[in-house]
Amino acid sequence: MKNVKAEFIAVGTELLLGQIANTNAQWLSQQLARYGINVYNHTVVGDNLYRVEDAFSEAQSRADIIIVTGGLGPTEDDLTREAFQQISDLEIMEHTPSMNKIEAFFEKQKSTMTPNNRRQARVFKGSEVLDNTVGMAPGMIVKYEQKTWIFLPGVPREMKQLVKSDVIPYLQKLTGNEEIIKSTILKFTGIGESSLEHELSDIIQAQSNPTIAPLAQDDSVVIRLTAKDRSKEKVDELLKGTKQEILAKVGSYFYGVDDQTIESQIVALLKKENKHIAVAESLTGGMLTDKLISVEGASSVCHGGIVCYDTTVKQDLLGVSKELIQNKGTISEECALVMAENVREKLNASIGISCTGVAGPDEVEGKSAGLVYIAICDDTGEKFVEKFNFQGNRNSIRRRTTLKSLEILFKHLKG
Amino acid sequence: MKNVKAEFIAVGTELLLGQIANTNAQWLSQQLARYGINVYNHTVVGDNLYRVEDAFSEAQSRADIIIVTGGLGPTEDDLTREAFQQISDLEIMEHTPSMNKIEAFFEKQKSTMTPNNRRQARVFKGSEVLDNTVGMAPGMIVKYEQKTWIFLPGVPREMKQLVKSDVIPYLQKLTGNEEIIKSTILKFTGIGESSLEHELSDIIQAQSNPTIAPLAQDDSVVIRLTAKDRSKEKVDELLKGTKQEILAKVGSYFYGVDDQTIESQIVALLKKENKHIAVAESLTGGMLTDKLISVEGASSVCHGGIVCYDTTVKQDLLGVSKELIQNKGTISEECALVMAENVREKLNASIGISCTGVAGPDEVEGKSAGLVYIAICDDTGEKFVEKFNFQGNRNSIRRRTTLKSLEILFKHLKG
Repeated sequence: MKNVKAEFIAVGTELLLGQIANTNAQWLSQQLARYGINVYNHTVVGDNLYRVEDAFSEAQSRADIIIVTGGLGPTEDDLTREAFQQISDLEIMEHTPSMNKIEAFFEKQKSTMTPNNRRQARVFKGSEVLDNTVGMAPGMIVKYEQKTWIFLPGVPREMKQLVKSDVIPYLQKLTGNEEIIKSTILKFTGIGESSLEHELSDIIQAQSNPTIAPLAQDDSVVIRLTAKDRSKEKVDELLKGTKQEILAKVGSYFYGVDDQTIESQIVALLKKENKHIAVAESLTGGMLTDKLISVEGASSVCHGGIVCYDTTVKQDLLGVSKELIQNKGTISEECALVMAENVREKLNASIGISCTGVAGPDEVEGKSAGLVYIAICDDTGEKFVEKFNFQGNRNSIRRRTTLKSLEILFKHLKG
Repeated sequence: MKNVKAEFIAVGTELLLGQIANTNAQWLSQQLARYGINVYNHTVVGDNLYRVEDAFSEAQSRADIIIVTGGLGPTEDDLTREAFQQISDLEIMEHTPSMNKIEAFFEKQKSTMTPNNRRQARVFKGSEVLDNTVGMAPGMIVKYEQKTWIFLPGVPREMKQLVKSDVIPYLQKLTGNEEIIKSTILKFTGIGESSLEHELSDIIQAQSNPTIAPLAQDDSVVIRLTAKDRSKEKVDELLKGTKQEILAKVGSYFYGVDDQTIESQIVALLKKENKHIAVAESLTGGMLTDKLISVEGASSVCHGGIVCYDTTVKQDLLGVSKELIQNKGTISEECALVMAENVREKLNASIGISCTGVAGPDEVEGKSAGLVYIAICDDTGEKFVEKFNFQGNRNSIRRRTTLKSLEILFKHLKG
């Protein structure tokens, strides 16, 4: 396969004003990545002839394939053709089939076609015209001084249709790409991004196929493996081999692949073990139970729980004794353990999980914000409690407590 | 006000692979547009030293202000500092306060700091260091050959905090922008975006200062008013006047401004009335209670609740009678009302709220996904139940139920 450099230029002042996000560039990037075409730049430039020309000249000098989105519409602001003509001197002509289509559209709508709509049917002489089946302006592929220029409408629906029907097949032919490209995502919990990279640094440095890319995500640490080969079997084998190598080092932090979440894995483990769970949560206020119940099919393994935010609920509904609360307080190992035991009993569950702590910003019972206890009580007789000091504001402490509870529960179930 | 050209450079191969969209550029564009600063280019470049250098050189030659996001993190791929050093020859040094902060973070988390984390504390000598209060890597403002370079972390939460606290005030000073620009957001519930726009069409068409912009948001309908003037008093007066005009038309749907959420308004109303609330939720699985408890100071008005996802919990813990469940089912007006009554009693609350329904995808008791009952029972003696048919997948039905419950509760409290 030929190694080519691609880049994208989006034309439109609305992007520079932040009225829309450049989601076209993201989508195009995903498509090209799948076919092994390296994208080196995204550029956004406004509806200004000179600045569009500058962006085009720059791209002509450094890339092999340039995909331009936007600026092909009917208004005076749509300057993509004019700007490319300035740098290339290519002739612009009216494309009869496109013009007929536009006229037929207005006739069908029984509305008058304003003259500026003719503008959309103009194409470069000698270009390959791409039929826009969901809009007016056709796409174009133009060869200019060894570089391939692909002009597409900026409306995402129209752009995507043309990419799928015309652009991808063209690029596969152009690059001689017979390779199959496949990615998988490995997900980890209980380890930071930098520690994971540190643990895997030898493998990461030695690897090129599959490539190994750590990705920062809000609540978990994930690695994407991307393998390429002409044979589907070989691709799967490459991914499998590297996954095994990685899990040999950091398997204890691994919880799932691709779309799997830690809560979906917990629900799957509970189903497998034929167990069900009850939750007693204080500072998290329902967030932990909500995570579990968000999983399709959770009803058979999570019956519900008690949100015992206030001390009275811990006492009256959950049956934590007044003495325990007086002697140890509600933010204590002892209270967390009794909460887990009692919720398990009251809901006739196999496992009880509890969390209690200080979400902040104020202290509770003289304990500062971020102090959290998480306890598990299992009908196997096993029970334990862990203590944490989380950082952050009220809602980040609540979120961290929920995630840590899921992590502890997952590890407990995995055994 | 000085006319300046700004541009943005986002550094990160994950953008070129389409793993994330460049939403930072959209958000930054919106901010700069509000302050009258023209943005001429967005560029995205991968984690490659030479290509980042090229992008930096290009920007240095054409813009006055360059904002760079990303590439400041702890890994070997984070090359923003190195690339700028190549073009500027500026010295890089360790910033002691940032280093202390990073060390303190790892100490408090009781985790080991790997050496690569030190990388994040490096800044250019002579730069203005911007304190990242929500993450590790500080931002920097660097003057280089008449151009202003602003380096920010790529994590949106961190980038936004630094822009609000440091970058905007800096740019206003730099551009001599003495106009005060102030926005306020008016929030509505129980009315669709197009109906709201229809009701307000006269006001929207007649207005230019403040501008009135309806914003599409996921879960509520909001309007942004933006006023400009050199006098702070005049700006406030303009905003107040237009707000009054709007509320005269659609005040019955209004619930709050700016950061106020419907749940924070509910907590405020409960406090004012000296009432407290208990929640019995089935399909929402804790989400409703979680929303209320997410509000700072919720502890005095929300004691908690029961997540009665399974029928056994509705019976055993919440005391819904076997007869009612047999005759009417758990997805019924009657069950919702008893749930609200019983949770109010069991938690000694002034108000009980409940929801029960089918989240899907499967039917429950012969009722199809989306059928939901929400009930309220107040110690004033008032009680009522409402029935809904929500559309969407499992989690969108659960989210809509939560939002509708909050809306009903807010209206009930407002009286």
